[in-house]
Amino acid sequence: TDKKNRKVHHNKRLQQFLSTKEGLLAAGIVQEFLEFFQLDYTGAVFEPESGMSGKYEGRPALERQIDYDVSDELPLIAAIIKQRCTGGHNVHLNR
Amino acid sequence: TDKKNRKVHHNKRLQQFLSTKEGLLAAGIVQEFLEFFQLDYTGAVFEPESGMSGKYEGRPALERQIDYDVSDELPLIAAIIKQRCTGGHNVHLNR
Repeated sequence: TDKKNRKVHHNKRLQQFLSTKEGLLAAGIVQEFLEFFQLDYTGAVFEPESGMSGKYEGRPALERQIDYDVSDELPLIAAIIKQRCTGGHNVHLNR
Repeated sequence: TDKKNRKVHHNKRLQQFLSTKEGLLAAGIVQEFLEFFQLDYTGAVFEPESGMSGKYEGRPALERQIDYDVSDELPLIAAIIKQRCTGGHNVHLNR
């Protein structure tokens, strides 16, 4: 069916994304969010639908790639959102 | 069952997370990832299981909150990963 073909086409785009280091990190951070909040049913569908089966690196490996202090009380995505460079926020020197 | 009680307990933690501005943004970025790659089955489970039904703000609103140039070719999570402040990378002034 056309819908199935469309899904295969878009899975191809996702597979290309997952073949990059940044893409695999991004998808891992999404999966870690599901794991962190124990969204088990979602996770059970996400892994096969996304093609992440066997590719999920786990929180410790993802934490190392993020290279930022991550609270155990939060999912990794919360850390990278906080990490954003917002304007001059992170410049501590006076011009 | 104990497992069901545990899931309710953890959904409470997620609901508390979603009641914060940063948490809602984080969950929105996760949902946008699913939407971007047309992971429809995952999305259909994620919305009710996470409690995001009716809370998803959509990509344009999330983009405004991220306040960063986001390529149409990528999910929002890719932009915030790139945005990370890594070490002295974003300091342009000499001490």
